[in-house]
Amino acid sequence: MDDKTAKIIFQPSGRRGAVPMGISVIEASRLLGADIEALCGEKKVCGKCKVRIEEGFFEKYGLESKPSHVSSWQEEEDKFIDTEDRQAGFRLGCVTKVLGDLLIFVPEESRAGKQVVSKAARDIHIEHNPAVTLYYLEVDKPTFEDPTGDYERICAQLEKQSGFKDLRIDIQTLRQLPAALRKGDWKVTVSVWMDQEVIRVRPGKFEGSYGMAIDVGTTTVAAYFCDLGTMEVIDTVFLMNPQCKYGEDVMSRITYHMMNADGLEKMSNDIIAALNSLIDQAIEGTHPPKKKVKKKKGEKDAEQWIEVPEKGKTYRRLTREDIEDITICGNTAMHHILLKLDPEHVGMAPFPPVIHHSLDIKARDLGIHINPSSYIFVLPNEAGFVGADNVGVLIAEEPYNKDEIQLIIDIGTNGELVLGNRHKLISSSCATGPALEGAQLSYGMRAAPGAMERIKIDPETHEVDYKVIGRDAWRQYSEPQEMQAKGICGSGILDLLAELYSTGIITKSGVFNKKGQKSERFRKNPDTGQNEFVLAWAAETGISKDIVITQKDVRQIQLAKGALYAGCKLMIQRMGVEGVDKVKIAGAFGTHVDREKALIMGLFPDCEIKKIESIGNAAGDGCRAALLNREKRAEANWISRNVEYIELTMEENFQQEFMRAMQLPHMTDKFPHLEGLVPAKILHQK
Amino acid sequence: MDDKTAKIIFQPSGRRGAVPMGISVIEASRLLGADIEALCGEKKVCGKCKVRIEEGFFEKYGLESKPSHVSSWQEEEDKFIDTEDRQAGFRLGCVTKVLGDLLIFVPEESRAGKQVVSKAARDIHIEHNPAVTLYYLEVDKPTFEDPTGDYERICAQLEKQSGFKDLRIDIQTLRQLPAALRKGDWKVTVSVWMDQEVIRVRPGKFEGSYGMAIDVGTTTVAAYFCDLGTMEVIDTVFLMNPQCKYGEDVMSRITYHMMNADGLEKMSNDIIAALNSLIDQAIEGTHPPKKKVKKKKGEKDAEQWIEVPEKGKTYRRLTREDIEDITICGNTAMHHILLKLDPEHVGMAPFPPVIHHSLDIKARDLGIHINPSSYIFVLPNEAGFVGADNVGVLIAEEPYNKDEIQLIIDIGTNGELVLGNRHKLISSSCATGPALEGAQLSYGMRAAPGAMERIKIDPETHEVDYKVIGRDAWRQYSEPQEMQAKGICGSGILDLLAELYSTGIITKSGVFNKKGQKSERFRKNPDTGQNEFVLAWAAETGISKDIVITQKDVRQIQLAKGALYAGCKLMIQRMGVEGVDKVKIAGAFGTHVDREKALIMGLFPDCEIKKIESIGNAAGDGCRAALLNREKRAEANWISRNVEYIELTMEENFQQEFMRAMQLPHMTDKFPHLEGLVPAKILHQK
Repeated sequence: MDDKTAKIIFQPSGRRGAVPMGISVIEASRLLGADIEALCGEKKVCGKCKVRIEEGFFEKYGLESKPSHVSSWQEEEDKFIDTEDRQAGFRLGCVTKVLGDLLIFVPEESRAGKQVVSKAARDIHIEHNPAVTLYYLEVDKPTFEDPTGDYERICAQLEKQSGFKDLRIDIQTLRQLPAALRKGDWKVTVSVWMDQEVIRVRPGKFEGSYGMAIDVGTTTVAAYFCDLGTMEVIDTVFLMNPQCKYGEDVMSRITYHMMNADGLEKMSNDIIAALNSLIDQAIEGTHPPKKKVKKKKGEKDAEQWIEVPEKGKTYRRLTREDIEDITICGNTAMHHILLKLDPEHVGMAPFPPVIHHSLDIKARDLGIHINPSSYIFVLPNEAGFVGADNVGVLIAEEPYNKDEIQLIIDIGTNGELVLGNRHKLISSSCATGPALEGAQLSYGMRAAPGAMERIKIDPETHEVDYKVIGRDAWRQYSEPQEMQAKGICGSGILDLLAELYSTGIITKSGVFNKKGQKSERFRKNPDTGQNEFVLAWAAETGISKDIVITQKDVRQIQLAKGALYAGCKLMIQRMGVEGVDKVKIAGAFGTHVDREKALIMGLFPDCEIKKIESIGNAAGDGCRAALLNREKRAEANWISRNVEYIELTMEENFQQEFMRAMQLPHMTDKFPHLEGLVPAKILHQK
Repeated sequence: MDDKTAKIIFQPSGRRGAVPMGISVIEASRLLGADIEALCGEKKVCGKCKVRIEEGFFEKYGLESKPSHVSSWQEEEDKFIDTEDRQAGFRLGCVTKVLGDLLIFVPEESRAGKQVVSKAARDIHIEHNPAVTLYYLEVDKPTFEDPTGDYERICAQLEKQSGFKDLRIDIQTLRQLPAALRKGDWKVTVSVWMDQEVIRVRPGKFEGSYGMAIDVGTTTVAAYFCDLGTMEVIDTVFLMNPQCKYGEDVMSRITYHMMNADGLEKMSNDIIAALNSLIDQAIEGTHPPKKKVKKKKGEKDAEQWIEVPEKGKTYRRLTREDIEDITICGNTAMHHILLKLDPEHVGMAPFPPVIHHSLDIKARDLGIHINPSSYIFVLPNEAGFVGADNVGVLIAEEPYNKDEIQLIIDIGTNGELVLGNRHKLISSSCATGPALEGAQLSYGMRAAPGAMERIKIDPETHEVDYKVIGRDAWRQYSEPQEMQAKGICGSGILDLLAELYSTGIITKSGVFNKKGQKSERFRKNPDTGQNEFVLAWAAETGISKDIVITQKDVRQIQLAKGALYAGCKLMIQRMGVEGVDKVKIAGAFGTHVDREKALIMGLFPDCEIKKIESIGNAAGDGCRAALLNREKRAEANWISRNVEYIELTMEENFQQEFMRAMQLPHMTDKFPHLEGLVPAKILHQK
C-alpha cells in the first residue's frame, strides 16, 4: 500500500476500495458508493453524516489500527456527537479526513439509500389461537365477611368464567394488581399467557392485544406487527441487522465472537437494541404523525408540534407495553448470538447447537422493552446450519401434511434445503455464501438504489445494457451520467451469468473465453493480472470507476450455484426419489430472481418451471403463525426433531456432484419447453 | 422545647430522649444508651462510629428537618465516608455535634452491643424431599452421526436416568451449558428444580447443594443455612431488619410507604440488601477465617492475610452461587414490602392481602445474589394480619394432623393466634404492639447488653434487685457503677409487672397504689406530672439517668397482655370448646419468658402449666421444612386457605373481654399447683 491511497471498508454495505489520502469520509463514501446521508451538502450543519470509525475490529483485516488514521476532532462535531458516542468512535463524515486505512460503519440513520427489503406478509391460512388472551373480570370488593386477597379474588372469577385453575402470576404484574383493581372499581382486564400465567392487568375494559413476529436474518431483521385478536398485520417493519459491522456472514460473526472476549456480548446487545428500535418503529406507526408549525401572529413566536393524522385513518396510539407477545426465528447462529449462547460450536464440526427446543424467555430477561411480564417465544432449531428460521418456513408451508414431494429452498446468506412429504422430511444446508445476494463480489452490493438489477449483453457487439434500482430507463435510453450505477445486486447476478455465457464471453467451465471477445470491455487488469469484463464505464457510475466482473467473481457465483444445485441433487438421491413435485423458493432471492434463468443456470434441480413457486418470507410467515396460533409452537418443536439433518459434505459423492454442478449451464436439454423464453444459444450450446 | 436541649431518637434501638445541645452524637448515644461503637476512644481514627442522620423522615415525628441540626462536615470524615454515603446522610458520630432535634440511624456495623437473638434451629422431623436435586450425567460427545444439541443431549440422559420429560432450562443456565459440557469432558452435574427446570450446570461431579430458609421478622431477619442433601443446618445467621429505621412496627412501615412516594422501593431495597448480606454472612462461615500477619525478617516488610482454619474443622469454601434454593416467610406486611407489593390495603379494613398463594420468583428478579437461575419460594399468607410466618409455624407444628386442640401463639411485634385440630383451625391476630418485647416503654429496649432481664422487688422495703444482660452478678452483689443498666427488655417486663403487683406497688387495675408505697422510688415526675417508679438509680446505669417505669408504661403492658388474653379467649369461645389441650408459644418471647409468670399475669388463657410449650422460632422451622421438603410447600398453600381467619375486633363481646383482660392478675385461683413456684401473695391476692 502506498502513501497516497488508503484502503477503506464501509459497513454494512461492504463497499470497499482504495481512496486518495486526505479526502473526507463523505467523499470516500461517494467514491465507493457507500451512500452516507449529507442533507446540508457538507456545510457541517445537519449532523446527518455520523459514522463510527471501527478501528479495533480493523485488525482482523490485517490492517493497522492507529488513531492517526483519521483527522483530529473538530469543534463542529461537539454539536452533534455526545461524549458517549464520541467514545464509541462516532465522527461526522463531512469533517473527518481519511489519513489511513479505515473500517467505517455507517449507522442506519446515516444511510442515504435505504435498503430495499422485500419481506411483506403473505396471506397464509392461520387458525386463531394466540398464546396471550384477554379476560374482562368484574369482582366484588373485599369485606369483613370476605377479605380474600386481590389475586385470589380475580382467580376465582377467572375460574368461574373460563375454568382456569392453578394460574400463576408474574411478580411484576402482581405489583400492578392492587392499584388496577381499585382504579378500575373492581373491574379489570387481565392477559393470560398459555392458560398458565397472568402477565398483565389493566383497570377497566380493554379489547386490544398485540404481538410481533420477528425474523432475525443475518442481514435484515423483519417483523410483522400483529393484532392478536383480529390477526391483522398492522405493520411490517425492517432494519438492517446491526451485527453486519462485525462481519457479513454467519461464520465471520462466529469468528468475531471467538476472537473478542466481549464479542458475543456486543453482538447480542446490538441485536437486542435493534429489536427495541423495531418495536418503537411499530409503535410509532400507531400514533398520528406530528408536524412542526409556527403559532399564529400575535401569539408568542414559538414553534410547536401538532398532530396531522391522515384523513380516514384510525390510529390506535399504542405503547410498548401493549405488545404482549413476541415470536422470534433466525438461523442457529443468529439465534445463539441473540440469546448470548456460545455460537462457537455451531461453526465447528459436527456443528451441534446449544439447544434445539424452543424457549419461552421473559422479555425483561432479554432486555426487550415490551410488557415486562411477557414471554418471548424463540422458535426451535433443527441443526447447526438449519435453524429456527427454517422451522418457521416448515410450519408456514407444512410439507409434512402433504402427499406431494416438496423441495423447499431458502436462499439467504446460507442455503437451507428441506425435501420430503408427510412420510419423511430431510434437511441440509449448503454453503452458497453471500455471492448470490451480491456480497463478496468486487462490485457486488445489496438491492439498494444504484444497484444493477437487470443486465443484457448484445451477442454481436458485447455491448452492455442494464437497469439500476431507482431509475426506470435502461442504459441505452439514458445519458451516461444519468445512470449513477454503483454495483450489482443479487437479481442482476444471475442475469449477468446467463448473458456472459450465452454471448460466449465465458465458457461452460466459467473461464473467460479469450478467443471469442468482441469488445474492449474484456481486459486484463494490470494491477491484479486478472481477466475482467467492464459492465459500466466510470462515466456511467456514481463511484467514478469502471464497474467490472472479474474471473474471481464468476468463480464465486459458480461456487454458490454449484453448492446449491449439488445440495438439491444429493438430497434427492438420498431420499431415493426420481424428482420432486414442487420447488418452493423462500427468501427475498426467490421473489426477485427470474425463475427461468435460475433454472437454466442450474441453481435448482431440473423440474418443470410451473412447479417452481416463490414463497417469499416464509420464515417470517411461520413465525407469525406461531404468534397467532399457539399450537404452531408445539408443531415447531415436533418438526424440529423430526426432520432428518443430512450433512452433505459427508455424502460419498459430494465432491464429484459439486464439481459437476459448477459447470454452466446444467443439462438445459431437459427443458425444451423453455425454448423461446430464453436466448436460443443457451438451450442449444452443449 | 428549649434552646439548651435537643430531642434525639436513635434507630433501630428506639432509644430516645433530650440531650444537651452541642454534645457529639457518640456522647448522645451514651446518654441514651444507644451503644455506638467507638473502638478508638473518639480519637477520630477508627471510623467505626458511622451513623446516618435521618432528617427527612424526622418530619413524621413532628420535628423540624433542617441541615443545621448537626455541625458541619469535618475533614476527618472524608477518610471513612465516601461521597455516596455522605449524600445518604452518613456522618462520624465522634465529630458530629448535635445542634437540634435528630433522628439517627445506627447501622448494624456501628452498634457496640450487638443484639442477642434467639432463633436457633429446633430439631423437628422433616422428610427429605428438597425442591432442588442434583444429577450427575455422563454423555457422549457430538459426532456427525449424532450432532444433537447440548441441551437435548443432557435431557436424553436425564430421561434415561430419572425419567424426566419436558424439562425446561433457564436461559442463564443454558448460557453456561456448552462450556460446562466441554470443560467437564462431557460429564456434568445439573441441578433440577421441582423436576421441572434445569437451574444450574457444573462441569464434572459435584455432591453439595445448599439453601437458606429465611424468616423476615419485623425486627429481626433470621436464616437457616442448610445442606439440601444431608438436611444439616450448617449455620444460623441473623441481622436486624434495616427497615426498623422507617418505624418499629408493621403499621408505621405501612404509613411510611403511604407518606413517601419512594417509601416502598426504599424499604424493599433495604431488606433485599439485608438478605444479601445475610447470604454473605452464611457463605463467609464456610471459609476459614483469615488473620493479618507480617512476613518474616528479610522478606519485604509487608503485611498479608493468611488463613487460620480451626483445628479439626472442615471448611466447605462455598460461593453465593452454591446457594440454589431459598424459602422466605414473614408477616403479610413484611412479605408485601419485600416483594414491592403495595402493603397499604393490608393496613386498612378489611385488610385484604395482594396475594395469599405462595410465589416462585427468580432470585435475579428480586435482586438476591445466589445462583441466578434459582427460584425464591415465598410462603403463602393466611390473611392481612396472619401472614406467611404463621403458615411457617403451622407447617412446622402441623396442628391439622392432631386430635388434641392446640392453641398456638406467636408473639412478635404482633400477636398471631391459631386454634384447633384436624377438624378445624381458626386464626386471628391481636394488636399486642411491641410492648411485650420492650419497645414503646420509656426505658424499654431489646435484649442487648445492659438490658434488665430479671427483676425482684422486696415486698417489705420495695428495694429493687435486678440482673442485666452481659453481667452475671445481681445488683445486690455489685457496686452500683458495675451495673451499667440501660433499660428493660421483654423478659424483664413480665418480671417487673408481677413484682409491682405482688408487692402492692400497683393495684389490680394497674394504677400506682399511692397509699401502699414504702420507698422514695415511687415519685411524681415533675416534668410530665406522671407517677413513676425508679428501677435503677442514675449511678447504676450506663446512661446517667434514673431508669423508671411510668404509669403509661404499665398501661402499655396491660394493653398488650389484655389484647393477647382476650384474643385467646374469644377464639376459644368461637371454636365452642371448653379449653385447650396444649398451648404452644412461638417466637423469642416464648423462649425467654417465664411460663408461670406469663400464665399468672394473664397473658395466655388458663391451662395447666405442663400444657404450655415453647416452640421457639417455629416460623423459621416451617420455612426450613419447606426448603428441605417440597411437599411442605403444597401443604403450606393448602393450609393457608383452610384456616378460617376471625377478625377479633368484629366479635360481639370483644371490647368487654379486652377490658376485663387488662386486669391484673387474671383468675390466678385456677392454679393451686403453682403454689411455691411463685410469690405467695400473687396466688392469694384477689
